[in-house]
Amino acid sequence: MRKKILVLALFMAAMASSLFAQESIENLGFSLDVIWLFIGAILVFIMQAGFALVETGLTRAKNATNITMKNVMDFCFGAIVYWMIGWGFMYGKDALGGLIGTDQFFYGPMELNIDNGNFYKSWFFQVVFAATAATIVSGAMAERTQFKSYLIYTCFISAFIYPISGHWAWGGGWLANLGFHDFAGSTVVHSVGGWAALMGAIVLGPRIGKYVKGSNGQITVKAFPGHNIPYAALGVLLLFFGWFGFNAASTGVATVGDGGIWSGLNIARVSVTTCLAAAAGAVGALIFSWIWFKKPDCSMTLNGLLAGLVSITAPCAIVSPGASIIIGFIGGVLVVAAVEFIDKVLKIDDPVGAISVHLVCGIFGTIAVGIWGNAPDADIAGLLHGGGFHQLGVQLLGIVTVGAWAGVISLILFLSIKAITGLRVTPKEELMGLDITEHKAEAYTGFQIFSNM
Amino acid sequence: MRKKILVLALFMAAMASSLFAQESIENLGFSLDVIWLFIGAILVFIMQAGFALVETGLTRAKNATNITMKNVMDFCFGAIVYWMIGWGFMYGKDALGGLIGTDQFFYGPMELNIDNGNFYKSWFFQVVFAATAATIVSGAMAERTQFKSYLIYTCFISAFIYPISGHWAWGGGWLANLGFHDFAGSTVVHSVGGWAALMGAIVLGPRIGKYVKGSNGQITVKAFPGHNIPYAALGVLLLFFGWFGFNAASTGVATVGDGGIWSGLNIARVSVTTCLAAAAGAVGALIFSWIWFKKPDCSMTLNGLLAGLVSITAPCAIVSPGASIIIGFIGGVLVVAAVEFIDKVLKIDDPVGAISVHLVCGIFGTIAVGIWGNAPDADIAGLLHGGGFHQLGVQLLGIVTVGAWAGVISLILFLSIKAITGLRVTPKEELMGLDITEHKAEAYTGFQIFSNM
Amino acid sequence: MRKKILVLALFMAAMASSLFAQESIENLGFSLDVIWLFIGAILVFIMQAGFALVETGLTRAKNATNITMKNVMDFCFGAIVYWMIGWGFMYGKDALGGLIGTDQFFYGPMELNIDNGNFYKSWFFQVVFAATAATIVSGAMAERTQFKSYLIYTCFISAFIYPISGHWAWGGGWLANLGFHDFAGSTVVHSVGGWAALMGAIVLGPRIGKYVKGSNGQITVKAFPGHNIPYAALGVLLLFFGWFGFNAASTGVATVGDGGIWSGLNIARVSVTTCLAAAAGAVGALIFSWIWFKKPDCSMTLNGLLAGLVSITAPCAIVSPGASIIIGFIGGVLVVAAVEFIDKVLKIDDPVGAISVHLVCGIFGTIAVGIWGNAPDADIAGLLHGGGFHQLGVQLLGIVTVGAWAGVISLILFLSIKAITGLRVTPKEELMGLDITEHKAEAYTGFQIFSNM
Repeated sequence: MRKKILVLALFMAAMASSLFAQESIENLGFSLDVIWLFIGAILVFIMQAGFALVETGLTRAKNATNITMKNVMDFCFGAIVYWMIGWGFMYGKDALGGLIGTDQFFYGPMELNIDNGNFYKSWFFQVVFAATAATIVSGAMAERTQFKSYLIYTCFISAFIYPISGHWAWGGGWLANLGFHDFAGSTVVHSVGGWAALMGAIVLGPRIGKYVKGSNGQITVKAFPGHNIPYAALGVLLLFFGWFGFNAASTGVATVGDGGIWSGLNIARVSVTTCLAAAAGAVGALIFSWIWFKKPDCSMTLNGLLAGLVSITAPCAIVSPGASIIIGFIGGVLVVAAVEFIDKVLKIDDPVGAISVHLVCGIFGTIAVGIWGNAPDADIAGLLHGGGFHQLGVQLLGIVTVGAWAGVISLILFLSIKAITGLRVTPKEELMGLDITEHKAEAYTGFQIFSNM
Repeated sequence: MRKKILVLALFMAAMASSLFAQESIENLGFSLDVIWLFIGAILVFIMQAGFALVETGLTRAKNATNITMKNVMDFCFGAIVYWMIGWGFMYGKDALGGLIGTDQFFYGPMELNIDNGNFYKSWFFQVVFAATAATIVSGAMAERTQFKSYLIYTCFISAFIYPISGHWAWGGGWLANLGFHDFAGSTVVHSVGGWAALMGAIVLGPRIGKYVKGSNGQITVKAFPGHNIPYAALGVLLLFFGWFGFNAASTGVATVGDGGIWSGLNIARVSVTTCLAAAAGAVGALIFSWIWFKKPDCSMTLNGLLAGLVSITAPCAIVSPGASIIIGFIGGVLVVAAVEFIDKVLKIDDPVGAISVHLVCGIFGTIAVGIWGNAPDADIAGLLHGGGFHQLGVQLLGIVTVGAWAGVISLILFLSIKAITGLRVTPKEELMGLDITEHKAEAYTGFQIFSNM
Repeated sequence: MRKKILVLALFMAAMASSLFAQESIENLGFSLDVIWLFIGAILVFIMQAGFALVETGLTRAKNATNITMKNVMDFCFGAIVYWMIGWGFMYGKDALGGLIGTDQFFYGPMELNIDNGNFYKSWFFQVVFAATAATIVSGAMAERTQFKSYLIYTCFISAFIYPISGHWAWGGGWLANLGFHDFAGSTVVHSVGGWAALMGAIVLGPRIGKYVKGSNGQITVKAFPGHNIPYAALGVLLLFFGWFGFNAASTGVATVGDGGIWSGLNIARVSVTTCLAAAAGAVGALIFSWIWFKKPDCSMTLNGLLAGLVSITAPCAIVSPGASIIIGFIGGVLVVAAVEFIDKVLKIDDPVGAISVHLVCGIFGTIAVGIWGNAPDADIAGLLHGGGFHQLGVQLLGIVTVGAWAGVISLILFLSIKAITGLRVTPKEELMGLDITEHKAEAYTGFQIFSNM
């Protein structure tokens, strides 16, 4: 009897110590997951500064205050409405067969326990993605949009447009169920922003003096060079910096992810493919612009780097380093061609090339999943890896449906704003610059500037 | 007999394996805590760049070198004296009933073991907080202070002023024992810097041409617009970025914090409240300035964002997301009113609005704990959550005593510096700009600048 | 019998639970290590922006586009060739007795398992170090180098020069086996870049107008002040920020490092020494320049901060906080003297002081290990800690051999480029500025600039 008790006691001691270990491990894992998402979130957050600098640097000095204000305020308004409404549509309880989330609006009890931890754990990481989609648009609409109209738009994309298609792909919605793979958001984030940018630029029309009809009836396309290339370069480097968080932290966890796979190595690999694709994008755009324009063009090369990043955003976790270089390089070439095509052929005025970077390369990156995808663990095999056209088909379906949603709704939105409050500043305001007319403040007091070059 | 030995052996194997796990878990937790503080520290560190850019951007081009030098050097001198003296006063062995720390000056043995690890584990995280308090002052004293006098001041705040009141609230001192709650430093960091800024601005007097008495005896208040709004905006975004570390890493640990609570979820929640309050601060200031000045003022809005951040710094861990929006919004409105009041009514010349942001909102944020605080776990209940006036009273006591300490000592300090070495440059130097007169170097060689606008 | 089975079952349950814990702990540790290297890597990555800003700020406005392009593209080309070739030479299977690595070229299997995880785990962290060595050179060769020639150089340093000497010290090569200690790369990274910078500056020759022979045969040394001091200051703060990752993450792991030591505390201590040395470097250069030039010189002080960082890079893990201040301070004084000596006496034109910062202080920092080193655990004792001249001798051997390798090969490389494609732009291009002539784009369109000051 005593012996039995002893054995049992020994066992219980060992078991208790082990269970304690178990719980500690779970807690440690939870903390590590939270910290990982925190790291990802702050990195994606600083991309706001990157966008602000790129857009400011590539436009004219007379609109610098206005552009930075837009970039700061789209985050601020966006964060609040995403907490009020957007999060619930995106990650609330699914309804209508994968179409929309329906609870967790205005969320936030004070009780801190792990059971209701998903909102707290993920919200900061999610809101910076929403803000990325929103801020893409400011570049394409730069130098001619009313400040208040831009604020109205930004509330709508953060509250409705982005969260709903986001729900389809990332919130357990119908696209996710079909096997649509967009790891970090080539379509979910960048294309959505890109579609809105396209519609905004179309509804607004070009800046005064951009496309001038000569006496012979021919249209001359004028370039408005940016006023500060170091800003643009710093902005691109900050975007590159932040993109590592954008892509790598899209594992969602640092510990056990979907399918019971530990995420450590996946995080590392995503960093490698992201780095190589961005580098290849810049190299691709540099070489292509050097051949085409006979000069190593700076703003094209910077956009090429971003193009590489947007292109690898969807496939970053499921392609090899070699494939990531190919994808990035193609993205870099594509963006130069797209910028030229949109400007010279379509005559849509996109001051910073946002449509080419985010929409065109967002589509390409999503397609790349179906071509170079090679992840047996995740059941993804692209065209070049024996998967046939299946994954490619699903990817195209996602591109088309998300594009239809974001494109149509944002078109309606911009047309409505135009009709109700007006979308564009007056020609006089545009020529004087939005800093003076919208904000009553120059950006560079004391400097002598020729503001209409 | 053999059986007993076998049972014991089995038990010991299980136990050893379990104890090994135990030790590994502790070590893992220690590493995770170190990394968490490291993340927090680098984020707070980069706020130095944020402050430098905000202050440079919001002042005139002729003082840009001087301001960046001050911001770089207050960190460098501050770090050294904080290692020599400050750390010991703040976190050394308590003496005089919670008034001051008394050992660990010039600390740093070479032996690396966990027992003496508190200095190494925490010093980097602590020094960047000290540097934040110090650097707040440079903005309020910009464009007219002697460089060497500023360096003297900065050594004193980092060695004495900040650490001693810091000991009261964070080093186990008397305010901590009374239940004063200032999670990340609305009072401990921001108000201390704000009081010094106020005293510095008063002792210095306004810049030449700021308040001009007309022939009719009336005083005209002139605005000196900043010379680079994108710098200011980038600076604010870097501050926002760094503030996530400032607030979230003030959990101090990633694992088990005070009261045995795992910190993971707390980290996540602090990120949410910090993000929302900052956003609401910017929105509040934008709307209020739009109504009041009839324009969406850029520098006011940027200061509003910072105001939201300072306001949420004390209560970030103990309020709901909804409350954080209210707190941030009030902070944003408050800062606009305070900037106007200090400039137009009090006629204290604070070129960047540092006193309004850090002192006024630092006080408000500390009070907010006593109003919106709602954390049963931490035994905090504010006025609106059934706690009556108890917490509010403790908060006010902290505000008043820390304010008396920091205000009186920094007033004595600035008056002493003024008497001994002089505090202010000559009028001629001020008009020429401090870049040329103090550092013999323009900030923007090659650019044509009108430096006295 | 039943009892035996019961005992065994109990034991197995305890054991299984414990083994499960064991495996979870290992996985957690692996994830934490990956995240730690990720943090280090992104911090070192953002140093690219720091270098770009420092170099842009300290040179003239007419070359700003060119310099930022070089800084962006050396990373992009470097990353691709480092994946293709460099990684294999540095970390591939050792051959020729520690001289060179020989496999893992074009590496990247798709299988994700921990066994083949070293490439994925470490590549991102390693490539940013390679890019740091490469980008140092652009500053010394600024304002007169052909863009395409710079790109050729950058491919060679990232593919061959840096990886091979890197293999000696960090890839398990012959210097590592001798006990050479260069924790984060004073020699491996900074001196290698510094030697290439020196050779590049010599082969190129000085900028037009830098050293002008008067009618009396005497040479006048002209200073070309930088065009944007806030850029330079922001760049230095970003470098400081990134350097914490550079040094602290050179533990390589967050868990168990070499010799079975847990790395947590080591990470924390490296942060302390890095912070203090940088601060002391700035203080040293400020005081020394104030005495020598009778003014607190801004660019000297900023370089002093970097000098402190380069100097502490080798010894950061094995010296006390006090020693780190001494090392940093000496570095700061040294850099001022070196800048003057190289400019005024040697008449080598290094526009930003890169040779003084990275080569001179890289050598000093490596020597410092042999003087102030004090780490019984790591078997390192410097001259001042009872180790005699042994460690110092090994350090000098490393300095000389790595210097010979990097210096001779980069000299051959630059002479070859000069002979084959040309290294320098034409005098006319140089006077017009490289932005217009190389990239057909001004950096600051709309601003009135006097570009030949």
